[in-house]
Amino acid sequence: MSKLVLLRHGQSVWNRENRFTGWTDVELSKLGGEQAQQAGRLMKAHQVQFDIAYTSFLKRAIRTLWIALTEMDLMWIPVHKHWRLNERHYGALQGLNKDETARRVGEAQVHTWRRSFGVRPPLLTPTDDRNPVNELKYKQLAPTDIPLGESLKDTLGRLDPYLHESIWPQLHQGSHVLIVAHENSLRGLVKELEKYTEQGIVDFEIPTGQPLVYELDEQLTVLKKYYLPLN
Amino acid sequence: MSKLVLLRHGQSVWNRENRFTGWTDVELSKLGGEQAQQAGRLMKAHQVQFDIAYTSFLKRAIRTLWIALTEMDLMWIPVHKHWRLNERHYGALQGLNKDETARRVGEAQVHTWRRSFGVRPPLLTPTDDRNPVNELKYKQLAPTDIPLGESLKDTLGRLDPYLHESIWPQLHQGSHVLIVAHENSLRGLVKELEKYTEQGIVDFEIPTGQPLVYELDEQLTVLKKYYLPLN
Repeated sequence: MSKLVLLRHGQSVWNRENRFTGWTDVELSKLGGEQAQQAGRLMKAHQVQFDIAYTSFLKRAIRTLWIALTEMDLMWIPVHKHWRLNERHYGALQGLNKDETARRVGEAQVHTWRRSFGVRPPLLTPTDDRNPVNELKYKQLAPTDIPLGESLKDTLGRLDPYLHESIWPQLHQGSHVLIVAHENSLRGLVKELEKYTEQGIVDFEIPTGQPLVYELDEQLTVLKKYYLPLN
Repeated sequence: MSKLVLLRHGQSVWNRENRFTGWTDVELSKLGGEQAQQAGRLMKAHQVQFDIAYTSFLKRAIRTLWIALTEMDLMWIPVHKHWRLNERHYGALQGLNKDETARRVGEAQVHTWRRSFGVRPPLLTPTDDRNPVNELKYKQLAPTDIPLGESLKDTLGRLDPYLHESIWPQLHQGSHVLIVAHENSLRGLVKELEKYTEQGIVDFEIPTGQPLVYELDEQLTVLKKYYLPLN
């Protein structure tokens, strides 16, 4: 039997400011750090052990993982970071305040951008400073892999190869795996594990800082699923 | 041309208390955290870039690396942790105060333990709580690989396979590599790079928190060697 624990990163500075974040690489807020600590303590209290951990290229997820590993006294376990676990790229919305944007373009439009499966946000122009090609950490990606804005469908599509090449094989071996990632990349994992529909996964919410545990058999059938109880 | 930067971890809680530490897994002191931060800022100020980082299984080294990566905005680079980069195992001396030990057994004996190439400290008995077999992080080691106390020669011997299988090949490819480790595992790296004699390497000291840079050609011949200047 293998075990998979999903953890959404703690509150970031831009979550706190209610801004579209996407691939913008912002740190955890003070509260976010505390949420990460709480998640680590919960996993320790429930004696969850891990063989390996995965996270994205974004520091709010990496920091959450580091804080949780510190609490669990597991700083030494192998950690793999991959851009395919990044948050959905929010295109030209990145940096904008969500309420202001709703006032400008209407609630309905913002709702469509945030809660559709296949609708993309307005894309970045290639010359935009926010184009990920300008960042060192994406220098090794194929140009066709670099998004200028993603729908949830796009996010799940680019996550998929990494699930099949790295994460599912690790679980097939019976490992205990911790994944610290983002709302939308975690939706990709949950959709495949639980066979959600496209609309179903849009409505699925994973709370911040509360570890979601899956116990899986060798075919990755879900035997048990539960959140670690807070207190 | 490849680049190798060696960084000794910042002051640990037991360094501060003047105790033999070895494989005891103690955290950085507050000063140690500041030294790590300073080292990260220095590397950033000198625009040193890295493709990959290596560290040991011990949290004082991992923490130093994490703090330095944070300062350099390189949290996303791949990090490999390996027990072969651990500090020399100090056997039954681990936990003892160095001055008290000197008063008990004599300065000359302590000097011999600390500054010989081939002399081992008094070994742990296998039933000692401090035997690394009792720690989760060493569960996957072959029993013959687990030390009960090491001479510097032993430390260099167990480091050697990792240098040849992982670190030297990475440098042969022209990578820029950061290694955050310990006084004696770093001596192993320096001995091979600079062809030190056994007595020479015993006397070699690498300061805490000050990055030592090697520029190397494809045969790993040292083209340049320098410490990043503090201030």
